[in-house]
Amino acid sequence: MPEFRKDPLLDRWVIIAPERSQRPIEFEHETYRPDGFDPFAEGNESSTPSELLAVRSHDSSPDGPGWRVRVVPNKFGALDPAGDPVIRNDGLYSAVDAVGSHEVVIECPHFEVNLSRLSAKNVEEVLGVYRDRLLTHERDPRLKYTVIFKNKGPAAGASLAHAHSQIMAIGFVPKDLSDELASARHHFETTGQCPYAEVLAQELTTASRIVFETPHFVVYCPYASRFAYEMKIVPRRPGSHFGQIQPEQIQDLAEVLKKALQKIESALSDPPYNFVLRTAPFRTGSLPYFRWHIEIYPRIARAAGFEWGTGCFINIAAPEDAAETLRSQAVD
Amino acid sequence: MPEFRKDPLLDRWVIIAPERSQRPIEFEHETYRPDGFDPFAEGNESSTPSELLAVRSHDSSPDGPGWRVRVVPNKFGALDPAGDPVIRNDGLYSAVDAVGSHEVVIECPHFEVNLSRLSAKNVEEVLGVYRDRLLTHERDPRLKYTVIFKNKGPAAGASLAHAHSQIMAIGFVPKDLSDELASARHHFETTGQCPYAEVLAQELTTASRIVFETPHFVVYCPYASRFAYEMKIVPRRPGSHFGQIQPEQIQDLAEVLKKALQKIESALSDPPYNFVLRTAPFRTGSLPYFRWHIEIYPRIARAAGFEWGTGCFINIAAPEDAAETLRSQAVD
Repeated sequence: MPEFRKDPLLDRWVIIAPERSQRPIEFEHETYRPDGFDPFAEGNESSTPSELLAVRSHDSSPDGPGWRVRVVPNKFGALDPAGDPVIRNDGLYSAVDAVGSHEVVIECPHFEVNLSRLSAKNVEEVLGVYRDRLLTHERDPRLKYTVIFKNKGPAAGASLAHAHSQIMAIGFVPKDLSDELASARHHFETTGQCPYAEVLAQELTTASRIVFETPHFVVYCPYASRFAYEMKIVPRRPGSHFGQIQPEQIQDLAEVLKKALQKIESALSDPPYNFVLRTAPFRTGSLPYFRWHIEIYPRIARAAGFEWGTGCFINIAAPEDAAETLRSQAVD
Repeated sequence: MPEFRKDPLLDRWVIIAPERSQRPIEFEHETYRPDGFDPFAEGNESSTPSELLAVRSHDSSPDGPGWRVRVVPNKFGALDPAGDPVIRNDGLYSAVDAVGSHEVVIECPHFEVNLSRLSAKNVEEVLGVYRDRLLTHERDPRLKYTVIFKNKGPAAGASLAHAHSQIMAIGFVPKDLSDELASARHHFETTGQCPYAEVLAQELTTASRIVFETPHFVVYCPYASRFAYEMKIVPRRPGSHFGQIQPEQIQDLAEVLKKALQKIESALSDPPYNFVLRTAPFRTGSLPYFRWHIEIYPRIARAAGFEWGTGCFINIAAPEDAAETLRSQAVD
């Protein structure tokens, strides 16, 4: 029997309906047809806008070769770095210029599609770049939040194959995050407990949804996952702001992210996926009721009329079954 | 310059970023590879579960040929008609059996992919079936809401090509709808006005987002559309419950829906799309602050990490430009 499950952190219901996995044409993959030219490769720096930040060797020059990770403005950005966000009203309607920074993090200089195949050191540098850009944006008083995410594969929204992620710094706190913060704060004020700590404790006790653990992180399939094989990476140590991540955590996180991605690639034959970093808004001070984390969404089924019309998702893989499958993948 | 726009009915922001339409590999289409057998065709009634309702000739028998529209349980349903929805708690988590009815509306007896190519009389019968199923579900005290939607094309979540829509009757009001109702109610209590009537008046005055009008309906591209070329069909006459639609409205709506779909098919080369009927919950009495309506979402770009991580959408077509393009499509 399918069931509705409520996410305690979000007050959001999903339908867990494994029966539907027997439906034909449910799993779909697509492949790239690259035309041979890689605008993100070392040596092709002139095909992107000028870099905002790069991890590069000391004897190299900006926008030249010699880098390992490179951040550039998105050539087709949805945000504009110039201007002030002033609200315009037109009758019932409101609009504001989309001021912000839309950036591409090129994760490696050579052509490689999977972040998981980069060295742990390389992934660590990518994560360090996320932190550094976030801290830079936090200093801009026009901005309130930075969304860091990755689209892997065309079905997950990527338009280029070379491994990359994106950063969007915006002037407001996104509704999903403000809902999550409000719900967590309410829990904290009611019970005195951080709900992320409580969920982590319950998951570690139950064990059935745990994928793997390391000294600094726990990886599990959330109880009310929206997506089949969804995973959450949560730090053991309290901390609401990713910008405050410590060196030993970032080093561990690089291994954790590699391993989590290798597991979904192995279990689901290299599926399209998104991941997103959820962190607290700028300049709030440390929040005792929130913990930054990473969510990974494999994109093997598609949101359709029901999801778009209701906000409720149908997930065809029970998180306990997904966790068992993911645990059993032997990856290096 | 891209801009953020707020939907006044939902308190929801989107990014309108036409600049991104220049991005390569943005528009994607997919085609079906049917294997030749059509489980929804007249004569193949035994390949579906027994019918719940059919519009059929007087001399025909249930689950035999002679029908024009047929409703059957979804063979791979996400809901179970039997049982009682009792909440189970497990520490921080809550679950409830997914009790409800998941149905398929087979829109015509012959193989046809596009609802828009059926006769107006046929479409009118489909809409009548929506109303009748809704009224039937309303009599079940376990149920609170019926979601009626269509997935057209594999990229919109359809797994079969033969024209069909779906009905899901559930025991709670979906979050998106309860948010919409709460926002509309707040507007009504603050201003004394129905926000749907006010938006309609502003759209008719502004005119730039109107696609077309008929005696009973207005079709427009919403100011803060989440999807490129999104359209909304709103009745001129107040009415919160689709179940109370009048015969002259349903006759007009059939023509309106056909024409709206023909316009997106013509403008966007037969794209995948979803539509969803938004109506008030069961047994609330008439709501002066809400009006039932249909939303059509062409699926020419894909939700990606930003959308899934924030709840905020990037729409690459300004609604004013979309409306102009849709207006200019000559359809019969």
